[in-house]
Amino acid sequence: MIRVCVLISGGGTNLQALLDQKAAGFLPEAEFALVVSNRKKAYGLERAKAAGVKTAYLPTVRFDSNEAYNEALRDLLLEEKIDLVVLAGFLVVLGAPMVEAFKNRIINIHPSLIPSFCGDGFYGLKVHEQALKRGVKVTGATVHFVDSGTDTGPIILQKAVDILPDDTPESLQLRVMQQAEWKLLPEAVKLFSEGRLHVKDQVVQVDRS
Amino acid sequence: MIRVCVLISGGGTNLQALLDQKAAGFLPEAEFALVVSNRKKAYGLERAKAAGVKTAYLPTVRFDSNEAYNEALRDLLLEEKIDLVVLAGFLVVLGAPMVEAFKNRIINIHPSLIPSFCGDGFYGLKVHEQALKRGVKVTGATVHFVDSGTDTGPIILQKAVDILPDDTPESLQLRVMQQAEWKLLPEAVKLFSEGRLHVKDQVVQVDRS
Repeated sequence: MIRVCVLISGGGTNLQALLDQKAAGFLPEAEFALVVSNRKKAYGLERAKAAGVKTAYLPTVRFDSNEAYNEALRDLLLEEKIDLVVLAGFLVVLGAPMVEAFKNRIINIHPSLIPSFCGDGFYGLKVHEQALKRGVKVTGATVHFVDSGTDTGPIILQKAVDILPDDTPESLQLRVMQQAEWKLLPEAVKLFSEGRLHVKDQVVQVDRS
Repeated sequence: MIRVCVLISGGGTNLQALLDQKAAGFLPEAEFALVVSNRKKAYGLERAKAAGVKTAYLPTVRFDSNEAYNEALRDLLLEEKIDLVVLAGFLVVLGAPMVEAFKNRIINIHPSLIPSFCGDGFYGLKVHEQALKRGVKVTGATVHFVDSGTDTGPIILQKAVDILPDDTPESLQLRVMQQAEWKLLPEAVKLFSEGRLHVKDQVVQVDRS
């Protein structure tokens, strides 16, 4: 059994997808040990409490720098003996203290098929706005390990989603969540918890045997 | 009925996919009027002849510059009253004379989901090598109109293809052809021939009514 911490800032729909799959028996090897939010009113904290998961509120204003925040977060997660960190809409930049302490043990979900529409400035609705502006016909979502770059870490899973003729950034965002994000993230946690993810030369090999 | 010219340099498997769909009755509004190769021994020329399609051999060595080649190609295609130009593995760079004479009437197929793995230096096997090196789990193919940039024109159709654990650049190239390229290219020619492609603000709207 591995101990999972989910980091959130807002509504926590990806967190809910994980909690739902845990409740459904899909994640027997993963224990949701902690949910941390940098925002006090993040609704995801309520979702965690409803599922009986311990929560912590760690606001950035208590710290002088991003590095100090990252050190405090790292210390909290080490104290809680966390094995896997899941970024589920966490709006604080993860820096060296976290990335080094949890190398290939932090996963993030990005709402595009990396390397399309990713990197600095591509977050939330902006990703979908840019995809529609470029006129792509297929987009999707990517779960990846977090390294020191932005969206540059080893890719774990990807799923394609078709763009429809009348899509708006909002309709596309919702469909990418429903068809890709809410499926990929629990699947990635399951694979990690079962020891099926192996990183070699920055490429993730998924053991499906 | 529109008159289509296919430009090739080699084996012409994408040309064959078009000819097969024409023979099967899938492209009633498209007449394959001409196949042009810059290489005399391109096997695609044999495929064209076998299907009763007129061929032309236009080698680059006859011309002083890429621009002069493009002017000669343009004049040939205008003389043949070509409505649509299809690039099917044509290894000569299309320049201003062609692009301006056939604006939004030249289509190309690229073996990735643009904007991933495209632009200068990304052609043939190199595209698939880079996709595997980055460790993406989903790739695909894109049919797009050709503009003055490299792979920057309006996207017509895209199709995703899963990457498999044991893929090599060669196995991936073949599967992308089979699952995506050979389907997308005839579909794009069909849509064009039926007047169903409309370009607005560099985005292609596909009329499927």
